[in-house]
Amino acid sequence: MLVTQILKSKGTDGVVSVKPGTRISQAAEVLSQRRIGTVIISEDGKQVAGILSERDIVREIGKRGAACLSDLVENMMTSEIKVCLLNDDADSVLKTMTEGRFRHMPVVEKGEMVGLITLGDVVKAQLSQLAMEKEALEGMIMGH
Amino acid sequence: MLVTQILKSKGTDGVVSVKPGTRISQAAEVLSQRRIGTVIISEDGKQVAGILSERDIVREIGKRGAACLSDLVENMMTSEIKVCLLNDDADSVLKTMTEGRFRHMPVVEKGEMVGLITLGDVVKAQLSQLAMEKEALEGMIMGH
Repeated sequence: MLVTQILKSKGTDGVVSVKPGTRISQAAEVLSQRRIGTVIISEDGKQVAGILSERDIVREIGKRGAACLSDLVENMMTSEIKVCLLNDDADSVLKTMTEGRFRHMPVVEKGEMVGLITLGDVVKAQLSQLAMEKEALEGMIMGH
Repeated sequence: MLVTQILKSKGTDGVVSVKPGTRISQAAEVLSQRRIGTVIISEDGKQVAGILSERDIVREIGKRGAACLSDLVENMMTSEIKVCLLNDDADSVLKTMTEGRFRHMPVVEKGEMVGLITLGDVVKAQLSQLAMEKEALEGMIMGH
């Protein structure tokens, strides 16, 4: 299964981003209001500067306390990001995520972000594909 | 696949818990230091009073700001918790998690918590089981 198919099955809600200069407390408001776990940091919504997750925020609160909430997102975001392409295969995306121990990958086409794919999206796609393949094999064995 | 098999494959690290009366800021420290996303609230490590996730903390920061970090865990935890048993099937656990939209379930035996199972654990188990079943079916077709 290709990344493009997974994105299609997710619908076209668009990717939520905040600009550099946003405070962590404001980013937490966006995560809370949009009911998401991760936000992209981007000046124009197309070029990805970084990614910030609930986990990043809580880890930093655990280390430094509430003071970190007035930091700027660009000081806490992950800026070394692996991206994937629309025609990448789900297997290769899953491998990259598992090896790198991260859960989100921006999907980029011609240098611009066109979507965001999560570990959950990829695994869900794989489960449904395996279930279909198994059914097809069972059909062959039953002689249908 | 049964919950007991999934727990075995995870190893026996034990479940991390904090006591009622712990502040959210301290719970964040535990999450950070132990590199986990969720902590059980329990007086004795056996009776589950509630569960608190990174998501719960960031949602509350988004709504109320840093003030919530001095709250007590029992005021922010989820206390209505579904639990599962060692002999429950992975399919039923996955169904309960999906329908209830949560990612963690304490595993309880004779009224005491013996483990914690995550959506990721269950899905991983299902992927490997489906892959095995598919391989077996292919073997049958190939005549091995």
